[in-house]
Amino acid sequence: MPTLVLIRHGQSAWNLENRFTGWWDVNLTEKGVAEAQAAGELLTEKGFDFDLCFTSYQTRAIKTLNIALEAMGRLWLPVEKDWRLNERHYGGLTGLDKAETAAKHGDEQVHIWRRSFDVPPPPMEPGSPFDLKKDRRYAGIDIPDTESLKDTIARVLPYWESRIAPELKAGKRVVISAHGNSLRALVKHLSGISDEEITGLEIPTGQPIVYDLDDDLVAQDRYYLSER
Amino acid sequence: MPTLVLIRHGQSAWNLENRFTGWWDVNLTEKGVAEAQAAGELLTEKGFDFDLCFTSYQTRAIKTLNIALEAMGRLWLPVEKDWRLNERHYGGLTGLDKAETAAKHGDEQVHIWRRSFDVPPPPMEPGSPFDLKKDRRYAGIDIPDTESLKDTIARVLPYWESRIAPELKAGKRVVISAHGNSLRALVKHLSGISDEEITGLEIPTGQPIVYDLDDDLVAQDRYYLSER
Repeated sequence: MPTLVLIRHGQSAWNLENRFTGWWDVNLTEKGVAEAQAAGELLTEKGFDFDLCFTSYQTRAIKTLNIALEAMGRLWLPVEKDWRLNERHYGGLTGLDKAETAAKHGDEQVHIWRRSFDVPPPPMEPGSPFDLKKDRRYAGIDIPDTESLKDTIARVLPYWESRIAPELKAGKRVVISAHGNSLRALVKHLSGISDEEITGLEIPTGQPIVYDLDDDLVAQDRYYLSER
Repeated sequence: MPTLVLIRHGQSAWNLENRFTGWWDVNLTEKGVAEAQAAGELLTEKGFDFDLCFTSYQTRAIKTLNIALEAMGRLWLPVEKDWRLNERHYGGLTGLDKAETAAKHGDEQVHIWRRSFDVPPPPMEPGSPFDLKKDRRYAGIDIPDTESLKDTIARVLPYWESRIAPELKAGKRVVISAHGNSLRALVKHLSGISDEEITGLEIPTGQPIVYDLDDDLVAQDRYYLSER
């Protein structure tokens, strides 16, 4: 039975400050580091092991993976990093906290952006301090100005199909360390969750989510490892 | 001009205790972590950047790389890990400190093992607590029982030729985080150092060594970045 574990990165500085982060590259808090460590310890305790790891281009997800792997004695495992596992791009909301966003756009509009499946926030303004178009990490990549969850899914799933699913089908045990919305994309796909429901599905930080998959990668079960 | 930087991992627990480590997977000390951090900061300050990273299967080298990359804001760079960059395998000396080794084998013999080019220490004894034959990290690899420096070079150089040199020739900027003896193998090759001289060449921990190479990867210069 193919093994797949998903981990959302531990708490980041902007999770704590309640700011829209998206592609901005904030680091883990001390609590986030501890969550990643605990995730690795829990995986070891429950007898999990991996052959191959995937993560995004963002420090908070890469560090979460590295810390968990070190706790497992598995820092030597191969790791593939790809921007398509990045967090949803929050466009012009990037960097704003809840109060700033509400003051600028109104509570109702913010709720729509947070909870709708296919309505993207306004695009990032030119000259924004959070513009990453000149970051060499994304050289050659047509990076978005903003994304709805639907847009995020549209770039996560081709990566899943081309790089991750074939490894699982070949019998590799896989862990993916990524973000709230790139993991929603995978959970929606694997668990067949509707467009309406998926936007309300909260994925907690630092909690390993286990998928039992059959050989065609159809989900037989999905659970939080801490609850078994 | 191709860019190549070599970094020997920061101080490890057994560097500090003066024990033969070899393939045993000890972690960095606090000082080792600080050395890795300083290496990353120095590389940034001096304007170095990379496209591709190589390291061994050993925690102390992988962590040194990860810490340096994080300090550079480059944790997202691709990293290839390979056992052929591991430290020299110290066979039956693994785990012994200086006093234990001298008591068991005599000072003169230990000096020969440390300083000869092609005399390996005695092989690791069956049932040694430091035997790694059942470590899944090395599954499928015919791991040595002991190695002379010559033996170490004999597995480092094919990896250099097959995986690292082609990337440099293709214009990639490369950093290698590895070990005293796997780096001696590279320095001997690149700087044309004799069998006699190479065993006395000390490679300090956490100090980036820069190679200026021509397009055929012939060394034009080699220097410690901290000294420029």
